Amino acid sequence: MGTISEEILGKAAGKKASAGDFVIAPVDYAMSHDGTSVLAVKAFREMGVEKVWDPKRIIIPFDHLVPANNENTALLQKDIREWAKAQGITNLYDVGEGICHQLVPEKGFAMPGKVIVGADSHTCTYGAFGAFATGVGATDMAEVYSSGKLWFRVPETIKVTVDGKLAKGITAKDIILRIIKDVKTDGAAYKAIEFYGEAIRALSIAGRMTICNMAIEMGGKAGIVPPDEKTDDYLRGRAVEPYRPVYAIDAHYCEEFTYDISDISPQVACPIDVDNVHDIEEVEGKDVDQVLIGSCTNGRYEDLESAAMILKGRTVKCRTLIIPASRSVMIDAVDSGVAATLLKAGATICNPGCGPCLGGHMGVLAEGERCMSTTNRNFKGRMGKGSEVYLGSPLTAAATAINGKITDPRRYL
Amino acid sequence: MGTISEEILGKAAGKKASAGDFVIAPVDYAMSHDGTSVLAVKAFREMGVEKVWDPKRIIIPFDHLVPANNENTALLQKDIREWAKAQGITNLYDVGEGICHQLVPEKGFAMPGKVIVGADSHTCTYGAFGAFATGVGATDMAEVYSSGKLWFRVPETIKVTVDGKLAKGITAKDIILRIIKDVKTDGAAYKAIEFYGEAIRALSIAGRMTICNMAIEMGGKAGIVPPDEKTDDYLRGRAVEPYRPVYAIDAHYCEEFTYDISDISPQVACPIDVDNVHDIEEVEGKDVDQVLIGSCTNGRYEDLESAAMILKGRTVKCRTLIIPASRSVMIDAVDSGVAATLLKAGATICNPGCGPCLGGHMGVLAEGERCMSTTNRNFKGRMGKGSEVYLGSPLTAAATAINGKITDPRRYL
Repeated sequence: MGTISEEILGKAAGKKASAGDFVIAPVDYAMSHDGTSVLAVKAFREMGVEKVWDPKRIIIPFDHLVPANNENTALLQKDIREWAKAQGITNLYDVGEGICHQLVPEKGFAMPGKVIVGADSHTCTYGAFGAFATGVGATDMAEVYSSGKLWFRVPETIKVTVDGKLAKGITAKDIILRIIKDVKTDGAAYKAIEFYGEAIRALSIAGRMTICNMAIEMGGKAGIVPPDEKTDDYLRGRAVEPYRPVYAIDAHYCEEFTYDISDISPQVACPIDVDNVHDIEEVEGKDVDQVLIGSCTNGRYEDLESAAMILKGRTVKCRTLIIPASRSVMIDAVDSGVAATLLKAGATICNPGCGPCLGGHMGVLAEGERCMSTTNRNFKGRMGKGSEVYLGSPLTAAATAINGKITDPRRYL
Repeated sequence: MGTISEEILGKAAGKKASAGDFVIAPVDYAMSHDGTSVLAVKAFREMGVEKVWDPKRIIIPFDHLVPANNENTALLQKDIREWAKAQGITNLYDVGEGICHQLVPEKGFAMPGKVIVGADSHTCTYGAFGAFATGVGATDMAEVYSSGKLWFRVPETIKVTVDGKLAKGITAKDIILRIIKDVKTDGAAYKAIEFYGEAIRALSIAGRMTICNMAIEMGGKAGIVPPDEKTDDYLRGRAVEPYRPVYAIDAHYCEEFTYDISDISPQVACPIDVDNVHDIEEVEGKDVDQVLIGSCTNGRYEDLESAAMILKGRTVKCRTLIIPASRSVMIDAVDSGVAATLLKAGATICNPGCGPCLGGHMGVLAEGERCMSTTNRNFKGRMGKGSEVYLGSPLTAAATAINGKITDPRRYL
């Protein structure tokens, strides 16, 4: 008995695990991307271990700076490719395949009950599938590369229940921003968050990924949605191995939050904290220079589709970047006409990857510029020194693009 | 009487113009891109002139580093936007619209008989429409911004006649590489080149643009195809003003080259000179790390379509970047299924722009890496220090992508 995290970590460690316990648990899958693999491989080499524990359980997507933005990046990526090849790691997803947090689920590695670590803070995304998934540092990752195990302090868990029906113009992004507004950016520090309620159950897998993705924005170690038939549907023919769903049993929660989401407004997180969340009515009309629709938070097909719904037959008034989360998302957008709609509205579709979310390339902002973005962080200078990032849903971002000003998407629905 | 360049420059200057003469001629259109506008605007500001001569005749496409690759680029682009707005320049094509040399024709500015200058060496591309179009330096451009005029030394002209029929697997790119092999990289220095013959007449507008685009790779001041009904067809409903075709009349040519192109092999320009051209049989089998299909030379719809013809139902074996030359090209590729074919083959479609052609971002090569590219320059380190660039047609590039080795496209046709 326990929370989902207690249950999963306990099963993995082979003993009862309660919040606060330290356990050593085998890891089912380990992910590092082009940025963090550099550090993890360096640490691994320094350990003097010859071979990774299990090349089939290591996943290396290139997403942060793809295609390579300069010679140094190109050299680092070349080295990782060569290292992975020498180690027999075949799950390397190179330039153009997509964002790590999209690919790990798409390729069937994110499954209920699994322990997954990733050298990226948004690894918590895979909690959308009922996994215990958390971000680790690069040296921790080197240890995992080597032994396939890691120690964990079993987290306490916050229970969040979201009831009600999503009104027109309201999405998973608005739900999670509304929650972050209350929990605050450090409110879940080292805690897991379990998401319950009819609004969560009603969400698509994509929407649940958006929710769990942002658990880390409250400091959360993990964000978990209990698996259900939608999870199974997504994983059918995709899961790379059998899995067994794990649920909370008579669990103790350290804190509980309950929402009725039926009548919230679209939510916008204003600079420079993700919990600086406002109803859109409070920020509507602010000029923006760029709109970004993409990222591990909101770069999935349904996100692009909802942007296209707003932009169909309209024209954007500011630079509008659309960055599909993966090749598969881009193909779906092309095949369905969504890509054509976005292009004809004047949006720019870039190759799959993280894009400018972290200010590395492909749409860095100038000092004094403002971006409405579907990403997950609006920290000071995140997308460029002296620039501002506002976070909202793809619907809000698309509506904003039409006017070059922050705009309530309900005006166009 | 005279060559096309003599005729156009003479008409523009209002007096007879013969090779070697210096004339001052009004410029019909002036183009500077995000990179060179920075320098041209700086020089213009230093001149102390308040207003540009004619904002409608200045065209500013952002293509070299789009979306902005870093904060400095973003700031420079912001400044150009603000300057253009203050000057009333409405022909600013921002992030995602495409490459300057694609947009100037697409938007109807490249017309027979016009004098067009661009602050980019490949401005000679517009000779495909029977214009006298040439690249100028940024300070020259500042003078044009200010006065609308520029001095020209009327160039001598080389006549190139290309007869014969294009065999399967042979394209405009192969023709121009074959010519460059003979003329050499400096063989047309300060000269214009006029292209004649049944093979040139048979080329599409896109093919002619590929030919004229590379005139500068022989040092050419201009590369010109006499306008015909294909030119008129392209310009119908597109030309921004009336135009009058100009032809050579009893012209004197300083040199003549004649080809029968019927039985050439696909041509490849090997590092590190564009005239280091070989039949593909001599280079086939060399490993490549990256394939690039795009640029002002070969990023048009028919280029993407021919790549898709080769890649349909196949899978690429190396990083393959497809960079449409413009939004319009990308839309056509999406609408026609070409984009889907390329994506499903494993190619990565990036946003319209110059991409990594000049080594600035979006696919820079690591030391020791090799790229097969449809671009126009293979100079030492062009796409990354210590890397190699081989130049070929989109067909050759696509066939190479399938094998990760330089491959004769005729194997797949």
